[in-house]
Amino acid sequence: MSYNSFGRVLRFSTWGESHGPAIGAVVDGCPPGIALAEEDIQPWLDKRRPGTSRFTTQRREPDAVRILSGVFDGRTTGTPISLMIENVDQRSKDYSEVAKAYRPGHADYAYDAKYGFRDYRGGGRSSARETASRVAAGAVARLVIPGVRIRGWVEAIGGDAIDAARFDDAAIDDNAFFCPDAEAARRWEGAVDAARKAGSSLGAVVACEATGVPAGWGAPLYAKLDSDLAAAMMSINAVKGIEIGDGFAAAALSGEANADPMRPGDGGPTFLANHAGGIAGGISTGQPIRLRVAFKPTSSILTPVATIDRDGAATDIATKGRHDPCVGIRGVPVVEAMMALVLADQMMLHRAQCG
Amino acid sequence: MSYNSFGRVLRFSTWGESHGPAIGAVVDGCPPGIALAEEDIQPWLDKRRPGTSRFTTQRREPDAVRILSGVFDGRTTGTPISLMIENVDQRSKDYSEVAKAYRPGHADYAYDAKYGFRDYRGGGRSSARETASRVAAGAVARLVIPGVRIRGWVEAIGGDAIDAARFDDAAIDDNAFFCPDAEAARRWEGAVDAARKAGSSLGAVVACEATGVPAGWGAPLYAKLDSDLAAAMMSINAVKGIEIGDGFAAAALSGEANADPMRPGDGGPTFLANHAGGIAGGISTGQPIRLRVAFKPTSSILTPVATIDRDGAATDIATKGRHDPCVGIRGVPVVEAMMALVLADQMMLHRAQCG
Amino acid sequence: MSYNSFGRVLRFSTWGESHGPAIGAVVDGCPPGIALAEEDIQPWLDKRRPGTSRFTTQRREPDAVRILSGVFDGRTTGTPISLMIENVDQRSKDYSEVAKAYRPGHADYAYDAKYGFRDYRGGGRSSARETASRVAAGAVARLVIPGVRIRGWVEAIGGDAIDAARFDDAAIDDNAFFCPDAEAARRWEGAVDAARKAGSSLGAVVACEATGVPAGWGAPLYAKLDSDLAAAMMSINAVKGIEIGDGFAAAALSGEANADPMRPGDGGPTFLANHAGGIAGGISTGQPIRLRVAFKPTSSILTPVATIDRDGAATDIATKGRHDPCVGIRGVPVVEAMMALVLADQMMLHRAQCG
Amino acid sequence: MSYNSFGRVLRFSTWGESHGPAIGAVVDGCPPGIALAEEDIQPWLDKRRPGTSRFTTQRREPDAVRILSGVFDGRTTGTPISLMIENVDQRSKDYSEVAKAYRPGHADYAYDAKYGFRDYRGGGRSSARETASRVAAGAVARLVIPGVRIRGWVEAIGGDAIDAARFDDAAIDDNAFFCPDAEAARRWEGAVDAARKAGSSLGAVVACEATGVPAGWGAPLYAKLDSDLAAAMMSINAVKGIEIGDGFAAAALSGEANADPMRPGDGGPTFLANHAGGIAGGISTGQPIRLRVAFKPTSSILTPVATIDRDGAATDIATKGRHDPCVGIRGVPVVEAMMALVLADQMMLHRAQCG
Repeated sequence: MSYNSFGRVLRFSTWGESHGPAIGAVVDGCPPGIALAEEDIQPWLDKRRPGTSRFTTQRREPDAVRILSGVFDGRTTGTPISLMIENVDQRSKDYSEVAKAYRPGHADYAYDAKYGFRDYRGGGRSSARETASRVAAGAVARLVIPGVRIRGWVEAIGGDAIDAARFDDAAIDDNAFFCPDAEAARRWEGAVDAARKAGSSLGAVVACEATGVPAGWGAPLYAKLDSDLAAAMMSINAVKGIEIGDGFAAAALSGEANADPMRPGDGGPTFLANHAGGIAGGISTGQPIRLRVAFKPTSSILTPVATIDRDGAATDIATKGRHDPCVGIRGVPVVEAMMALVLADQMMLHRAQCG
Repeated sequence: MSYNSFGRVLRFSTWGESHGPAIGAVVDGCPPGIALAEEDIQPWLDKRRPGTSRFTTQRREPDAVRILSGVFDGRTTGTPISLMIENVDQRSKDYSEVAKAYRPGHADYAYDAKYGFRDYRGGGRSSARETASRVAAGAVARLVIPGVRIRGWVEAIGGDAIDAARFDDAAIDDNAFFCPDAEAARRWEGAVDAARKAGSSLGAVVACEATGVPAGWGAPLYAKLDSDLAAAMMSINAVKGIEIGDGFAAAALSGEANADPMRPGDGGPTFLANHAGGIAGGISTGQPIRLRVAFKPTSSILTPVATIDRDGAATDIATKGRHDPCVGIRGVPVVEAMMALVLADQMMLHRAQCG
Repeated sequence: MSYNSFGRVLRFSTWGESHGPAIGAVVDGCPPGIALAEEDIQPWLDKRRPGTSRFTTQRREPDAVRILSGVFDGRTTGTPISLMIENVDQRSKDYSEVAKAYRPGHADYAYDAKYGFRDYRGGGRSSARETASRVAAGAVARLVIPGVRIRGWVEAIGGDAIDAARFDDAAIDDNAFFCPDAEAARRWEGAVDAARKAGSSLGAVVACEATGVPAGWGAPLYAKLDSDLAAAMMSINAVKGIEIGDGFAAAALSGEANADPMRPGDGGPTFLANHAGGIAGGISTGQPIRLRVAFKPTSSILTPVATIDRDGAATDIATKGRHDPCVGIRGVPVVEAMMALVLADQMMLHRAQCG
Repeated sequence: MSYNSFGRVLRFSTWGESHGPAIGAVVDGCPPGIALAEEDIQPWLDKRRPGTSRFTTQRREPDAVRILSGVFDGRTTGTPISLMIENVDQRSKDYSEVAKAYRPGHADYAYDAKYGFRDYRGGGRSSARETASRVAAGAVARLVIPGVRIRGWVEAIGGDAIDAARFDDAAIDDNAFFCPDAEAARRWEGAVDAARKAGSSLGAVVACEATGVPAGWGAPLYAKLDSDLAAAMMSINAVKGIEIGDGFAAAALSGEANADPMRPGDGGPTFLANHAGGIAGGISTGQPIRLRVAFKPTSSILTPVATIDRDGAATDIATKGRHDPCVGIRGVPVVEAMMALVLADQMMLHRAQCG
């Protein structure tokens, strides 16, 4: 309920700054008896880890997670699971410019306006580094809903979208972009390289799908599955838009065109379409949950931008330091993690109310 | 924290079904000493009220609000404000079809899957009638942040958008569509009439802007202003997408193009653009807060759609009863209300933490 | 999470003032499919109803409850249950004194200090009338945990306690005091009559027991069953103390004397004692849950007491109006209701985490 | 809102087991700009630290706290403050008995009943070691309300109480028992020594007072200051009772005797008594906040007690390992910490609502 926690029954809280000694998450309310070891979490962190290709920040962080509590004899005990990741490769001296002036589009000015000052090293708490804590927490959430498969990918970079006809699930892990369209992936290599060299950055659209969610998770109104997912995704750094199912495209459709007709099926209806993204009235229908998330281009760029300094005087700022030319790419495991956390929480809420 | 409440410090809970005796909201945590009477709430309800033009449902509800608690000698006392609106014009017999079979795209099937049965009369709890309670609560929230002006409008119906160049704030209240472009409003008359006659429905995009929000409201991460707004908007019936500022368009921009450059100004920076929609790092920047919301077309249509009945057998369903041909239109005061509720809550949270 | 709600998953919010048009509660998160009608709630309200004997306030309130939402075809739907009780017998003119000066021991001064003013009619929101809403909500909670039997009684009035050796469960409903010891009940008649005639009031100790609670409800630390019960009981007007099991008496014991030894039993251990009141480590053990609650004497008395008026000047105050000479008596159904609400919530939380 | 967090706006979550690598707390919502270093926290931990006299457990823990986040340039930033304390002196082999059988009065059986298994080493999560995290969090809370002085002491051990007439504030830190009555302290030496040698343990009553709390903190009903304090205290291991002000003694008084008469004073009334413990109607009156807490004797004793083993068979258990002969003694800094956490949270809530 406070500012750095998310969830209702399965709840996690994150802490830590980009250039502090460590970051971490406390996952509370996890069911007991689930097999859990650091090896269950590490692969997801590795997927998000910086420095794995030239298309991400060159900061070198091993992102090795430690489980400090909540597990005994290899199983969760039902008590809080404390996860810690040490920061290893900070270079705080890169940020002297940022200390003095505000990066337009970044949290710098708003933080100062709110708190009176800020930890400017690497963006402090507003750094995307925080998302490693989410990925670690999300890895636990996945184990709470073992029947659910969550799969994210990049759908567009800098406005250049994949071709749906070439969608290949197997391709997603074969390139540096989590791109399901091998041809688009090749184009993006050029685009991201160009942006990086130009001291610029690019936005991206990330899509995510969860299969295996039974009908009945979610709740009417203020705990709608759509609402929880929207809050979850919008809480990720650089995210400025979220669509469930057809999203904005549905606003251009007629009622007939947007309907998801049903026919008799095995153990529930067979749906002939999925405009709704698997959620009707805030509750899952048994279809795949589908959403899309818009990541803006990072505002930490080498190209100088007009701004003001802490004293209010005009200046230009060019952000040194190591940054992702396209934060959306490493956003994929983060979107997946938030999807897992929302679904696991909603499964537990459903169990609470409906037995 | 439970399913039918929203907010952290300024918190409201709604209750009631479409065809029950009444609906209502309890607004809790409101500051004391604010002048409040039913006359402060009624105009906003009138704006959302059904039956005011041929473009909305023909259900005739006076939507007269009563304040049952929390006000003494014309001022809020700081205790819960109970607001009640009686349902007057139910026609439950229209819904015998809906009792038996599921409207594709509607909450019907998901509710049955979750709860085992449902109040099908008029959609029960999943009816957009619930949004009257939000509008009433939102009217209170507006008084908590008197310096903030919140203004919504319809930006597109059925894919036909306004021309930004013809945007006229004064026009918004001059037509049945909350449309700021008089020409578009004329086109929409034809389109909505046609949809209604064809037994169809149309989606819409609603935009909303809040001015007068100072820099510093909001919080990093899980209580980001963007995140709270996204949760709020996605909790509205028929909403499937939300954008803050440029939203998905930002995902197609470069870092320089998406920056909101700053120059020295009076009592804070002057921003040269507002791609961010007035929120950076989850915290308001002092610029106008801007967002867009996608409403899908209502799934209650006269055109028959393939579906199954409660026994799982194939059938077609055509929804009788009185329905909005375009729910997005009456969504405008609801979006405004949710914006007011989020901002008032965040103002109070800011005051709690930062004094 | 705001000020007038209680519970985590099964959550209720109350609203209303003593002399407003009505009071009520919204119960949210209730499981679906539970048979519920006004007749299930009314008997509990009748038990708490004022004016039933000369030992309670002479205000005549029928306390007739209406269910406004959340029930369809006689069963709960899983949506919020709105309960309303109209205020019928207000006499606000009795309170002109209270408007001007502060009753020592009452909420008057503290409310003014906090909110700047207050609804002084009948105590406004601080009136024990609010507890009718709790009793109504508690009646719903009882149905959520049908296997649990909750039973409260008065253990002492004005320091005169029952004799445990004469405890007779059947006697509790045979006198005006919910007293299990017929002899004590006779003594209390005289004591309460004397206090009433002297314009005084008396404190009381209420005890409550829940049987049928299985082992495993509750949680370590901040959702300990003891902690939730303590918060629940201390939220009742006039309550100033709470003990679980032996409570303060346990503080005088040695570890051996305070142990509840276990022997093999059917489907769980047989305990040879219950010093712990059925809760160990915050979690139920399967033994009866036992607690005791201290009600102070009401501060609304006819005997003049030294105080100050709203301008800070010295004065004396004698409270007219109709008041309970011993609020603890009608506290019994309120304590029972809060016990039911906590246990039902914890049952659902347990189900959420442990399946 | 989940199981291991406490507070509404200033919120803390604790994690960690007695014999895990570390324990810790995350304090969220703290105001920015407060000077904070490890040196501000360590003295309070030292006060609670085990092994400082022969009257506490002989486990040797330095309890050195590390601040891992939320502080920059020596001041709080408004982001979560992560506090970690490494466990140094575990001796898990002492607990083989506890793994097999249940200590009567301890959490052992209830944990197994709830979770199916448990971390039995040193009591795992149910160990009083968790309270070190609270003390660390409480040290931060004290800085949030610098005008408030919080002071706790032991009032009785094993039923032997201090003499109020000999109360000497200065004596509290002069003995191993936080005892304000030097004579009682001498008697307790003998009693605790005897209990320890006999393999027994003793209960205790702890009192706590907060001065400097202005009138107006707290809220009616479910966020009553009494209610929050009761929940806070009852969440501490071994606590089974809580009284605000006169508590159970008030239940034996008449209305006149229990009144706290007011006379005109400087900047608020002068109260002629404080039966209410500084709280009326759930809101502070400006008088000292006073409460008393009952600690039961620890159930980890060397004296054998009848119990059952994990297979349900009858056995006796004698708890080896290092335990406090009287856990109430080290409860003093814990009670103080919880008082500070509740008051700081309520101050912030008051600021949120009343500006």
